[in-house]
Amino acid sequence: MAPFTHQLRVRFNECDPQRVAFNANYFAWIDIALTELWRQSFGQSYDAVMASNGVDIVVAEATLKFLAPARFDDEIEIAITVKRIGKTSLQCSSTISHERQPLVTAELRYVFVELEQWTKTPIPDPIRERLAQYGPAAG
Amino acid sequence: MAPFTHQLRVRFNECDPQRVAFNANYFAWIDIALTELWRQSFGQSYDAVMASNGVDIVVAEATLKFLAPARFDDEIEIAITVKRIGKTSLQCSSTISHERQPLVTAELRYVFVELEQWTKTPIPDPIRERLAQYGPAAG
Amino acid sequence: MAPFTHQLRVRFNECDPQRVAFNANYFAWIDIALTELWRQSFGQSYDAVMASNGVDIVVAEATLKFLAPARFDDEIEIAITVKRIGKTSLQCSSTISHERQPLVTAELRYVFVELEQWTKTPIPDPIRERLAQYGPAAG
Amino acid sequence: MAPFTHQLRVRFNECDPQRVAFNANYFAWIDIALTELWRQSFGQSYDAVMASNGVDIVVAEATLKFLAPARFDDEIEIAITVKRIGKTSLQCSSTISHERQPLVTAELRYVFVELEQWTKTPIPDPIRERLAQYGPAAG
Repeated sequence: MAPFTHQLRVRFNECDPQRVAFNANYFAWIDIALTELWRQSFGQSYDAVMASNGVDIVVAEATLKFLAPARFDDEIEIAITVKRIGKTSLQCSSTISHERQPLVTAELRYVFVELEQWTKTPIPDPIRERLAQYGPAAG
Repeated sequence: MAPFTHQLRVRFNECDPQRVAFNANYFAWIDIALTELWRQSFGQSYDAVMASNGVDIVVAEATLKFLAPARFDDEIEIAITVKRIGKTSLQCSSTISHERQPLVTAELRYVFVELEQWTKTPIPDPIRERLAQYGPAAG
Repeated sequence: MAPFTHQLRVRFNECDPQRVAFNANYFAWIDIALTELWRQSFGQSYDAVMASNGVDIVVAEATLKFLAPARFDDEIEIAITVKRIGKTSLQCSSTISHERQPLVTAELRYVFVELEQWTKTPIPDPIRERLAQYGPAAG
Repeated sequence: MAPFTHQLRVRFNECDPQRVAFNANYFAWIDIALTELWRQSFGQSYDAVMASNGVDIVVAEATLKFLAPARFDDEIEIAITVKRIGKTSLQCSSTISHERQPLVTAELRYVFVELEQWTKTPIPDPIRERLAQYGPAAG
């Protein structure tokens, strides 16, 4: 299936004196795109979905490869593919591109936690089913 | 009395392609300095003081005048003077400077709110007393 | 004439542990909206317009009144009205709102500077003419 | 040799509604620590060193593992070890910890570029020699 994609425009204050987007922003943009994947997928906000399921997600690991810089005013696209839905963890890959040129590729591993103690918890079935549409089924 | 002062160094990612600190950061720096005023004043973290008093503060109004820019790696000083301690509101002025040259002057009005509904609440006496040391007594 | 408006959605990382948007972001959002006003007005990016006119703008003064907080996922609207176009300075007012409820009102004064020394410079006529459509003519 | 270390305190606006530091900040903090490593190592600012050598560095790849969250007001330590100094690339590892508990471990690969075209360029000898003190010699 096609990956989920979200577009946004690089803000002036996201760029640094090197005149390119500061690196930490790529990480933030993937987070924004994931929020939008949730909205498209569940028809509700990320917060509402998570609260009604009693869970949240935290990033466990992230690897980013920087191929080319994004610049002020660039319209970039963040694509997210769900790679693996484990018992408690979710692996995604993401490509951030500008005019079809990849700028950054990323591999991310998230872990679902319950809301009170932030201990690992199984991914709720309704969430598992929706996420599966953005990639292969759980291993 | 002398104003409270806090020093910090301008970060690369706080500067933009104009090669100066992005304007919104001056606002954030005053917030950081206020947190440190709390620490010096109460010998506890801002969060601990507020939680034990059942209050929080929100910014109601801020006026900033930009005189000269801060740049990457500049060591800046943020001075805060308490101008007026009202029943529920706190007025402060702040000067952000670099090598004794003022960069930004600011006037700020904060309001104390109770933690649950965020409605205005009188400034607790222990907080009122400590803040008074950074300026004239309450009106 | 109607003010210029720009919509955006509040990002998770723009919100703080008080569960509302951190105050400095309102300032950043007005900056983003001004960039979009430029794009609509000139049919070119802010950078291109400024570079071709040999000028840039810096913020000289900003006053923000905080009426109600924006929260994660809120779709907010930033309206900008040009209040006065002086020889070298530009005064704007802005209202940031959510579902027609005003959250922040702001008054801003910008100064045009030439690109090399950042000294005040008259607003170029082509820019003056375009800005006039968002408010009353120059004083 | 001991790794380079830099301490900083987590800012309120670096924390999100989960009440922990937003993930992208760990990336920014490593960047800040690297700037301070440069200052300690060269006795000059990062900018001055780079400009006088006609080079800059860009991040090529970063892997971060998130073990535990940093929270508002935590005093954290960012340790950087130089792992390998190649012809044009620099590999570092970093551990961000709080009260000796590791929060994040990171592996980073930077590439030196010349200032004009941002093409890869050999690491200048004076920089190579100084960096070597924070880890094993170049391969």
